[in-house]
Amino acid sequence: MTPIMSKSAAAELVVAARMRKGLTWAAIADEIGAPLVWTTAALLGQHPMTPEQADAVCRLLGLDEAVAESLTLQPARGINPALKSDPTVYRFFEALSVYGPALKELIHEEFGDGIMSAINFKVDISRRPDPEGDRVVVTFDGKFLDYKW
Amino acid sequence: MTPIMSKSAAAELVVAARMRKGLTWAAIADEIGAPLVWTTAALLGQHPMTPEQADAVCRLLGLDEAVAESLTLQPARGINPALKSDPTVYRFFEALSVYGPALKELIHEEFGDGIMSAINFKVDISRRPDPEGDRVVVTFDGKFLDYKW
Amino acid sequence: MTPIMSKSAAAELVVAARMRKGLTWAAIADEIGAPLVWTTAALLGQHPMTPEQADAVCRLLGLDEAVAESLTLQPARGINPALKSDPTVYRFFEALSVYGPALKELIHEEFGDGIMSAINFKVDISRRPDPEGDRVVVTFDGKFLDYKW
Amino acid sequence: MTPIMSKSAAAELVVAARMRKGLTWAAIADEIGAPLVWTTAALLGQHPMTPEQADAVCRLLGLDEAVAESLTLQPARGINPALKSDPTVYRFFEALSVYGPALKELIHEEFGDGIMSAINFKVDISRRPDPEGDRVVVTFDGKFLDYKW
Amino acid sequence: MTPIMSKSAAAELVVAARMRKGLTWAAIADEIGAPLVWTTAALLGQHPMTPEQADAVCRLLGLDEAVAESLTLQPARGINPALKSDPTVYRFFEALSVYGPALKELIHEEFGDGIMSAINFKVDISRRPDPEGDRVVVTFDGKFLDYKW
Amino acid sequence: MTPIMSKSAAAELVVAARMRKGLTWAAIADEIGAPLVWTTAALLGQHPMTPEQADAVCRLLGLDEAVAESLTLQPARGINPALKSDPTVYRFFEALSVYGPALKELIHEEFGDGIMSAINFKVDISRRPDPEGDRVVVTFDGKFLDYKW
Amino acid sequence: MTPIMSKSAAAELVVAARMRKGLTWAAIADEIGAPLVWTTAALLGQHPMTPEQADAVCRLLGLDEAVAESLTLQPARGINPALKSDPTVYRFFEALSVYGPALKELIHEEFGDGIMSAINFKVDISRRPDPEGDRVVVTFDGKFLDYKW
Amino acid sequence: MTPIMSKSAAAELVVAARMRKGLTWAAIADEIGAPLVWTTAALLGQHPMTPEQADAVCRLLGLDEAVAESLTLQPARGINPALKSDPTVYRFFEALSVYGPALKELIHEEFGDGIMSAINFKVDISRRPDPEGDRVVVTFDGKFLDYKW
Amino acid sequence: MTPIMSKSAAAELVVAARMRKGLTWAAIADEIGAPLVWTTAALLGQHPMTPEQADAVCRLLGLDEAVAESLTLQPARGINPALKSDPTVYRFFEALSVYGPALKELIHEEFGDGIMSAINFKVDISRRPDPEGDRVVVTFDGKFLDYKW
Amino acid sequence: MTPIMSKSAAAELVVAARMRKGLTWAAIADEIGAPLVWTTAALLGQHPMTPEQADAVCRLLGLDEAVAESLTLQPARGINPALKSDPTVYRFFEALSVYGPALKELIHEEFGDGIMSAINFKVDISRRPDPEGDRVVVTFDGKFLDYKW
Repeated sequence: MTPIMSKSAAAELVVAARMRKGLTWAAIADEIGAPLVWTTAALLGQHPMTPEQADAVCRLLGLDEAVAESLTLQPARGINPALKSDPTVYRFFEALSVYGPALKELIHEEFGDGIMSAINFKVDISRRPDPEGDRVVVTFDGKFLDYKW
Repeated sequence: MTPIMSKSAAAELVVAARMRKGLTWAAIADEIGAPLVWTTAALLGQHPMTPEQADAVCRLLGLDEAVAESLTLQPARGINPALKSDPTVYRFFEALSVYGPALKELIHEEFGDGIMSAINFKVDISRRPDPEGDRVVVTFDGKFLDYKW
Repeated sequence: MTPIMSKSAAAELVVAARMRKGLTWAAIADEIGAPLVWTTAALLGQHPMTPEQADAVCRLLGLDEAVAESLTLQPARGINPALKSDPTVYRFFEALSVYGPALKELIHEEFGDGIMSAINFKVDISRRPDPEGDRVVVTFDGKFLDYKW
Repeated sequence: MTPIMSKSAAAELVVAARMRKGLTWAAIADEIGAPLVWTTAALLGQHPMTPEQADAVCRLLGLDEAVAESLTLQPARGINPALKSDPTVYRFFEALSVYGPALKELIHEEFGDGIMSAINFKVDISRRPDPEGDRVVVTFDGKFLDYKW
Repeated sequence: MTPIMSKSAAAELVVAARMRKGLTWAAIADEIGAPLVWTTAALLGQHPMTPEQADAVCRLLGLDEAVAESLTLQPARGINPALKSDPTVYRFFEALSVYGPALKELIHEEFGDGIMSAINFKVDISRRPDPEGDRVVVTFDGKFLDYKW
Repeated sequence: MTPIMSKSAAAELVVAARMRKGLTWAAIADEIGAPLVWTTAALLGQHPMTPEQADAVCRLLGLDEAVAESLTLQPARGINPALKSDPTVYRFFEALSVYGPALKELIHEEFGDGIMSAINFKVDISRRPDPEGDRVVVTFDGKFLDYKW
Repeated sequence: MTPIMSKSAAAELVVAARMRKGLTWAAIADEIGAPLVWTTAALLGQHPMTPEQADAVCRLLGLDEAVAESLTLQPARGINPALKSDPTVYRFFEALSVYGPALKELIHEEFGDGIMSAINFKVDISRRPDPEGDRVVVTFDGKFLDYKW
Repeated sequence: MTPIMSKSAAAELVVAARMRKGLTWAAIADEIGAPLVWTTAALLGQHPMTPEQADAVCRLLGLDEAVAESLTLQPARGINPALKSDPTVYRFFEALSVYGPALKELIHEEFGDGIMSAINFKVDISRRPDPEGDRVVVTFDGKFLDYKW
Repeated sequence: MTPIMSKSAAAELVVAARMRKGLTWAAIADEIGAPLVWTTAALLGQHPMTPEQADAVCRLLGLDEAVAESLTLQPARGINPALKSDPTVYRFFEALSVYGPALKELIHEEFGDGIMSAINFKVDISRRPDPEGDRVVVTFDGKFLDYKW
Repeated sequence: MTPIMSKSAAAELVVAARMRKGLTWAAIADEIGAPLVWTTAALLGQHPMTPEQADAVCRLLGLDEAVAESLTLQPARGINPALKSDPTVYRFFEALSVYGPALKELIHEEFGDGIMSAINFKVDISRRPDPEGDRVVVTFDGKFLDYKW
């Protein structure tokens, strides 16, 4: 019996195969008919895939069974702490430092006491052309859950 | 000479006045003709207001000159660490822990090496009705900046 | 305009009044017809009360309007870090250190990929007589939320 | 002489074998006639098993002697810090942040000065059907220990 | 209604009164007929006293009712982090760093899987004359609790 | 030239050999005529052994020269941080959190300004039978050192 | 005897007076004939001023003797940790995270083993017009110190 | 499929080859016609190189294809925390601790509310001869970005 | 009964009085006939003074009884963490980071297994003239204590 | 091309060879005619050696070329954090916690605003015989650097 390949090891192989085959994340998401951010996050180890999805990805990328098995594993979710200070990732955390308390106030004003779910939740990213420089637009969309005893 | 009232002290007075007068953040934003999240963040101490905006807010809320002066002060931006684990705020940080690395991959795929600006940036929040429960929709919209020597 | 009394200052006054009047938390919960753990947590600053609940509590305990106003305030939730190592509180954190990963496995086995909500959630505590020493029984009861895009 | 296989290495092999053989944690617990949460925690490295239990588990899962030896080892108990922020595990810690001080108050009110033991202690988890969504119910049941000089 | 004096404020007054009246901790412990370490710890805020004990102490030290009330309060136990590096306190932590794992091994060898209770527990300190320099002898004496489901 | 085996690697082999040969720590301590806690701590890597002691231990346990060499190495002392939260070890740290400041007061009262040495120091552990449950008794015994310029 | 006003309290008064009188940092630096960054840092509490400088500043800003005395005090230098994550300050720390190791390599290549002094050191800031947006130019200029036994 | 060589592994090989071949960072930068600090940072893993740059560097240093592939990889930027306290690197962080808040004040005075970009940004280092000891001169040059909603 | 003035409050008053009266630390040390570093450390709150020393210091500095009482108090020793990064203090910590492990090796080589006492210990500081710039010479002088069971 | 052996790996081999050959650090320092503490620190990885020094050390200790190459490498200086709490090392850090602020005061009194250099710096250690127990004497000797713009 061998241990299951760790999801981070599988992610490294996915990243290598994707780069060497010149495939985009979007092409992989299309192949399995799943949303773009979800697919990318899943392949980086944050969501379990179904066996069918995992097999399709591995076929496309030329990866073996051990990777596919790992991709179906239930993850322990979370970010590598070192990555939090990567500038591209950090700007999102900075925006939350500046606007997080305001978002809390406005959620309570509009919805009452509760939270935006991070589980019944989706994220999307798109490019918005702008003459002064194109813009990254990221949308967080989560169900409101009220504190309910 | 007395020190300028701290922006956190001013924010506490704004919160108290808003609550006692039964005003919404939206009503205050309307009064000064500024965006909702920006106004809320500014009143919580994250953006300097112009003297005109500060005066208009203080007139509306019945607050004195010292508060207005504080609201125009250049802030030291950031979140109180204790607030990061408030559940309503934490869900945003959790979403970044799960999706931050995927967003980084997709920004690089679409735009190349660079970041979404958190300075040339705006946030919006809205309520999207949904039969299975209304949803909180938060949009981050920042200019793409490429690493440029 | 004066700031609203902080919820921790209000909690200190509630604790003092409760002790000096010889009232139990259960008696206060009965007075407002709310669950015991919810009421205690609310008075310690973790839930907003309705104005009616806040007024009833303050009448019972002989506390003034400023306390009542504070009790209705939307809280920033969370525990004082120093309290985490109090032995009575710490045993709960220790139990999670030992059993948390097992609970995660069993939630995934029984329910699939998702979480126990801490928002649509209730806690109860009771005493179970036992000849070898009575037992503290604490029940966490939260809605299952599946990861749903 | 070779070192004893670490309990985390043994746990990885148990997890892999369980997944590949399509066995549930419940089936393993049944095989050795031990409680479900205890068995899961023990196999994840938090409790020593008797040699008989360890052998029975390894027979069922097709694992060798080295795993069985490891499962009988006295553990150094505790959670991997990275796992604390996994959303499924985190919700339990969040619930303690919100309700821990209230539980402390109520233990002291009902039992006096002391703690709920985390040693003479058991945990159970079950599913409670609910028309608005089934619920995860987790029960902590520990002997009360009073501070006694 | 005024808040109850904090236990740390009460401890400061006890320390001041003890010093100014030239009383020893032993004299105070004798006055209330309680063990020496327990009494000292209680007056420093780590154990609640009975009203009789608190009144006796305050009479002896010339302290008022507010102190006595505070001394009967249920404490949130724990050490001020800054005090952990005071050399006199630190040596105990250092000894645990060096010998803690050995004590764990020997407890398991002699008693099996379990712990020394820190609740059903007493500490004593004494001076042992020694020609090479007198010695501080501290005894921890706690009930063994075995892991018991 | 090969590096010296690390003391933690040597400790793992000692633990494995001791378990497989069914020997107690007490039996090993007897073999080398050294105190029980000292011997256990030394084998776990906290004290250097003399070559004679190291050889005798390795002969008894069937371990090779490389282990013996490592056991004579001067250690870098200290505890693995992960082990501090193991419940059996943690109770000692908790007891210090509760009683450390009281011990400081009493050392100063009895001895003056100074410390209990953690170097000219010994620890003993014993079992004290008690009808209500046997007790773990741990004695710290260190020379008093006064602050002396 | 009253304590000397803390340098942070003095800095708050300087900031308030400067703002209310509509003076720039440059105007203050001119008044005392000292470099711009040095003067600003000194008034924020990072360098002691001579009594003549302190008096001149206080005359200009209308501040009293207590402020002047504080400005001459030897500082304990360092940044308020909360300010490290202010976006304007953070970008400098981020640049060091990205380029710090490269600067180390290049200092060693050009100068040998040693450091750029942060004591025999000056900083300057200027604005460089640029058609694509003006630029902030900050120069660090420190004496090279070689490791010298 | 093998994973891509990590950028830190590639950097170690670059450092070794550079040292053994007696090449300077400046010589490498010249070879690819890129700025000195940029090239050094890129080879230490902080910037992606174009395939042409990576190939030219590897030809010059006698390194194989796997290194070149790694050098073109998009990095996760940031500093190894252990390196922050290396004295040569630390002096830069210390200078920011002393002068960071002053730089913030002066940026706001000169440019208004905003930041120096760390993305549209360049660094240069040079040696300035000085009779009292040559000086290290490091220039940060970043585009000003104003807070713009 | 009032609390005893904290040693940090007493130290602030000593510092203020010393500055306003233009006295050196050396003059104060002379007045009480105690070593220079010891006296300075004691007045900053790290050693208790005898009542005679405390009275003499307060007479010299024009401070009242409350300060004298505080100076005789047994201290909780240790440094304010913010002060650790003050450049003048930090250089000592940096030197230990670089040379600490070498000092450990050399103490063990010369003395065997043990430590330099920090209790039976004195520090001295002096100025050594040097044509290339005068030097700060600090001597740590502590009794060797061997690990002795 | 192989990476250069890390300085910590080289140090482990030096330590092993020194122990097996029965050589003292002093003997090695004599062999290369360098100061004792400098040599020990350099071999533990804190200073680069010249190729001649590195070769002489490796010849004496019977170590190969790869070690010599590593010894000449420019180090990233600093201490392994785990070693800071080793008792022999910790006593130095404790002494700084107690006397660091006093040393800062006395440096400023004697020299003015500035620091003791940790770069233009040397350390020495010696044994001073004393009838009450020999003493460890460690001297820090660094050039004074005044804050100089």
